[in-house]
Amino acid sequence: MNFLGGKQINPDLQNERNKATFDVEEFAKWWYGSEEKLKFKRFLDSYILDDVDEDIFRTQHLRHDEIYTAGIKSCVKVSKKLRKLQDLLRPGQKDIWPGLYLSSNLWGALPPANPFSVHYSMIVDAIQKLGTAEQYEKFGKRAENLEIACAFAQTELGHGTYLRGLETRADYDPEREEFILNTPTMTSYKWWPGGLGQTANYCIVVAQLYIGNCHKDLALFMVQIRDEETHMPLPGIDIGDVGKKMGFPTVNNGYLGLKNVRVPRNHMLMRHDQVLPDGTYVKGPNTAVKFLPLLIGRCVANESSASLLAMACTIASRYSAVRRQCSVDADSQEVQILNYQTQQMKIFPEIGNAIAYKLTSKKLWQCYYETSRDIDEGNYDSLPELHALSCCLKVLSTSDVVNGVERLRLACGGHGYLSSANLGNMYVDGSAACTYEGDNTVLLLTVGRYLLKSYVKAIAGEEVPSLVAYLRNTVEDLASHKWTGTWENILRILEIVAANKIRLAFERIEKRLKSGQTEAEAFNNTGVELIKAAELHGRVIVASIFYEEVKGSSASFRSPQLNRVLENLFEIFLLNIILKKLSDIQRVITISEAEILDLEKRLETSLKTIRPDAVAICDGFDFHDRNMSSTLGCYDGNVYQRIFEAAKSNPLNAKPVPDVFHTHLKPFMKSKL
Amino acid sequence: MNFLGGKQINPDLQNERNKATFDVEEFAKWWYGSEEKLKFKRFLDSYILDDVDEDIFRTQHLRHDEIYTAGIKSCVKVSKKLRKLQDLLRPGQKDIWPGLYLSSNLWGALPPANPFSVHYSMIVDAIQKLGTAEQYEKFGKRAENLEIACAFAQTELGHGTYLRGLETRADYDPEREEFILNTPTMTSYKWWPGGLGQTANYCIVVAQLYIGNCHKDLALFMVQIRDEETHMPLPGIDIGDVGKKMGFPTVNNGYLGLKNVRVPRNHMLMRHDQVLPDGTYVKGPNTAVKFLPLLIGRCVANESSASLLAMACTIASRYSAVRRQCSVDADSQEVQILNYQTQQMKIFPEIGNAIAYKLTSKKLWQCYYETSRDIDEGNYDSLPELHALSCCLKVLSTSDVVNGVERLRLACGGHGYLSSANLGNMYVDGSAACTYEGDNTVLLLTVGRYLLKSYVKAIAGEEVPSLVAYLRNTVEDLASHKWTGTWENILRILEIVAANKIRLAFERIEKRLKSGQTEAEAFNNTGVELIKAAELHGRVIVASIFYEEVKGSSASFRSPQLNRVLENLFEIFLLNIILKKLSDIQRVITISEAEILDLEKRLETSLKTIRPDAVAICDGFDFHDRNMSSTLGCYDGNVYQRIFEAAKSNPLNAKPVPDVFHTHLKPFMKSKL
Repeated sequence: MNFLGGKQINPDLQNERNKATFDVEEFAKWWYGSEEKLKFKRFLDSYILDDVDEDIFRTQHLRHDEIYTAGIKSCVKVSKKLRKLQDLLRPGQKDIWPGLYLSSNLWGALPPANPFSVHYSMIVDAIQKLGTAEQYEKFGKRAENLEIACAFAQTELGHGTYLRGLETRADYDPEREEFILNTPTMTSYKWWPGGLGQTANYCIVVAQLYIGNCHKDLALFMVQIRDEETHMPLPGIDIGDVGKKMGFPTVNNGYLGLKNVRVPRNHMLMRHDQVLPDGTYVKGPNTAVKFLPLLIGRCVANESSASLLAMACTIASRYSAVRRQCSVDADSQEVQILNYQTQQMKIFPEIGNAIAYKLTSKKLWQCYYETSRDIDEGNYDSLPELHALSCCLKVLSTSDVVNGVERLRLACGGHGYLSSANLGNMYVDGSAACTYEGDNTVLLLTVGRYLLKSYVKAIAGEEVPSLVAYLRNTVEDLASHKWTGTWENILRILEIVAANKIRLAFERIEKRLKSGQTEAEAFNNTGVELIKAAELHGRVIVASIFYEEVKGSSASFRSPQLNRVLENLFEIFLLNIILKKLSDIQRVITISEAEILDLEKRLETSLKTIRPDAVAICDGFDFHDRNMSSTLGCYDGNVYQRIFEAAKSNPLNAKPVPDVFHTHLKPFMKSKL
Repeated sequence: MNFLGGKQINPDLQNERNKATFDVEEFAKWWYGSEEKLKFKRFLDSYILDDVDEDIFRTQHLRHDEIYTAGIKSCVKVSKKLRKLQDLLRPGQKDIWPGLYLSSNLWGALPPANPFSVHYSMIVDAIQKLGTAEQYEKFGKRAENLEIACAFAQTELGHGTYLRGLETRADYDPEREEFILNTPTMTSYKWWPGGLGQTANYCIVVAQLYIGNCHKDLALFMVQIRDEETHMPLPGIDIGDVGKKMGFPTVNNGYLGLKNVRVPRNHMLMRHDQVLPDGTYVKGPNTAVKFLPLLIGRCVANESSASLLAMACTIASRYSAVRRQCSVDADSQEVQILNYQTQQMKIFPEIGNAIAYKLTSKKLWQCYYETSRDIDEGNYDSLPELHALSCCLKVLSTSDVVNGVERLRLACGGHGYLSSANLGNMYVDGSAACTYEGDNTVLLLTVGRYLLKSYVKAIAGEEVPSLVAYLRNTVEDLASHKWTGTWENILRILEIVAANKIRLAFERIEKRLKSGQTEAEAFNNTGVELIKAAELHGRVIVASIFYEEVKGSSASFRSPQLNRVLENLFEIFLLNIILKKLSDIQRVITISEAEILDLEKRLETSLKTIRPDAVAICDGFDFHDRNMSSTLGCYDGNVYQRIFEAAKSNPLNAKPVPDVFHTHLKPFMKSKL
């Protein structure tokens, strides 16, 4: 199958493009950040994506080990090209290689999740932020250039959420100035690290540090696990792949058992906490900083999720413009399914979500870089806020996106179920993000805890970070707020609704404590309400970020046409939230039946307003066909031809009669017992 | 891996079983319908499931064609055993073979969805209900015994929902008394039929019937597609597998192109509409009856979905009793995750749903058999009602179940993502049911149309079927209804809420018609509201069926202990609906903040009440370990050992170093450009 055109544009798609009310190029420049960035992205498209000789989904019917092999090959091929390009354009810098390795614009040339995803999302930063300068020289630089491939091993077979429960231990031996690492039980086997199975030759191991058999704290150790020349596992290392999963076929998630594995003292990452040669333990100023790699993982999760959803929107919009079903009267042509209101309701709010989470991702990275700079200067103050924000945005982006991708897949009917549509793969890959770098429910509870603390401070009149300042507002403040239905009014009311939920959770916990429950019991018994409060807090943040983009100062740099498109998308995004949270809202403010009917009418109007621009907006995401690797989503809209060609090339069809007919089926069908 | 015991019961699971408040055996007898049925099921378990030599999920990492082959082998093996058993126990009858072929109690011995699923769910009945007595003699009996394997080809590459749009045509040739079948375009290729690819040798083809080039109606034709001896495709037949999908790896969904394929006149299924030898077309009394096969498909979908959810509940409950995470204080053992309120909220309402949909399935089959008997006697009156009911229950069961399965999978954290947990497979298989035999959104719109018609009749005082009689009640009737929160009160109010939604949709359509919109436009522009109305109608039906079981006459045949368990599950089931539909409810009746807080409190209490029985209830579903084929869900609870063994046996781990290290990875890592 050739995804690269040479085929005529489907007239239905062309017609959609002709009737767009705005300049798609302007949208694309905005989406990628600037004209230059868009230009470079397109250059990369032609340099890397046009040069892919095999579609990634073609490997899907292979064996697990063959899919892994194909994955490694594509990763190496892309890495080579990036390295060459870096050397050609800006030698000595790192913005292209490895800077672009994780970019979603390379998806399709390599698998979105692959054996080096963790290496590039977490490892280099982990060594830089948690290791000493010498450690960065020794390991970090080699990791950056993929001279060593490294996994991050924290989770164990029996332990995930609760880090204090990790069983892997590192005992310091002051005689030889070495740590001795062990996974003493089956449940302490490291389990899940991406790339660990057959790919990595190094691994950052998170372990309980013991000095003189006395427990100190968790610590991170750089452990060589395979020989650099032969790739054979080193002595004491029991390693392998955890087996097939729902998705992530090439990620090579692995397990690791350690038996008396010794590493030199200077293999413990010691920028913060330290073990001196004599075994003296020196605690750093902040213990939370060692979880920075997971925090980065959450930033990456938000970013990837946004890309995933934008791609799924593109596929579903184009397919819905091409697919025709049912006719109003017998003689006329069947109707584009994109004209059905129910179909629009599946797609358009997701376009709004894709944009919302693209914006939150930008914001989150910005906060990360600021905090990261602060930490480098020894200031850890903004870490708790960044932690809460990253948890909150990771949860909302991954869960909304994975639900959105599935909604969009279902919107493509039967053909959406084909592997060649690629929406199923997007779903199973996206779905993993709801669990990794912190289970979404656990993270919401973490946010809930943060909100409870902030609430106590806020009502005591203490200073709180800006993102939770609204907690000061209580239901009483509503006296001055009536429902008017403007965006500003809705945002304000959403804040009050969130604040009210947190107040309610706080009061329940208080009541339970007074009735004699322990803190843990009271917290647990309020869990369901607390995660609702945390979710609402997240909704407030996401909506505010989107609103700021639409109505803030950056609007003046865009044309009125583009601004109108973004406003339309914000409108549907906000209405969608409001209508889902209506009962929460009705608990703090009166909305009349007429006002609710008006909201529903606004939603209907909003669908109609977006309709003529839907395909063009997705064109504005400017994804290369290969990014989406979808028979349904190509730019030219030749959907049926591609599905047909993909089916014909399926290996099951290589022979007219399968062998199993003769060996099993026929003997049974012919025997009448 | 051996799923068949020999391992000690995990003490946490044993402890759960010890503290159950009811008799699990009594529950199991109730679930399976009687003591005899349970006994026979257990006999089958030992006869068939204990004798499976390879776990089905072991095939998951194979190539697509290898998985298909393994699927056929397992289907043939099970079929042989069933046939043998039938012959042994009740020769000449059909209750075991093929009667039990589709039973979910055989899942794990064969794949839940396999190349003969459609053959046994739709074909035999289709021939019997739509064919003549001679056709049943000729094809039906052979199909029943799998002497021929048959697919049902309706959907086309370009056509699904809109049957009038199907392009496959059958032209009658009165000279030779034959039909000539053609798929004249690419989009008219039959696409998706289960078993069609490489398995079936016959096929029921749905085509536009033309006589003398004059279009009559859709008709169904029995077409031989492969030679019975060689299995080679017959002349004019272009056939194959549609390629890998999100799930359903062994179903062998196929495509079919027909070029001047001739079949004798008596191969058109002619019990109702007929073509006489001279080409005279005789229309039967009812045109809708030809869609009966799809209706049966919807009954099967409801039934399978219920089993799927019950199995997923079993896996998640057992795993959550075994898995421990976080400790309240540093010294004590970590907590069973089943003790977390948030975890309970993920699992317990799904147990309620599993039971609800088991009950609706029973009810739906009962209605089907009644209508089927009526049709045999020439009475088609109850067909529209059965049609609407089957659409409604198919939509709610499949969408609730697939969401529930995914919620339960996510509740199992990272390990839920392993293929060996089998929850991912359950999800992708279950998810297909949201599309096949009618896309869920399209079906809801169909129900919506039915409700609008019924509403008009109801308010005009005409007689309407009992399931929609409540539409007579309007908001005004609420004057006599106050919120009291009893089950009866809640059910009554749910009806009024549903009736109100339908009234609103009706009024919107009326308004749009008056403003000059065509009927199709007005209907489309009300689509979003209409599917909400249809969904609410479904909620009323499901809740009423569950309520009837709990409070109806059958309660007197159960012990008070079992009744209490079912009541607890109904309570959480109902509260879960109510709290999700709160804003709809608040639009027709005033509920005070205190009353809402009370509902939330009832939910919390309900979780606590179910907690001690959760594992035992799932034990009461009495699934054989192999039904679930899950490392997380086995009866003995030895979760970690099984995950460990499954990982070790993964083929990627067969060699310590993969070849691709030497061919690709190392050269890249070692080259410094």
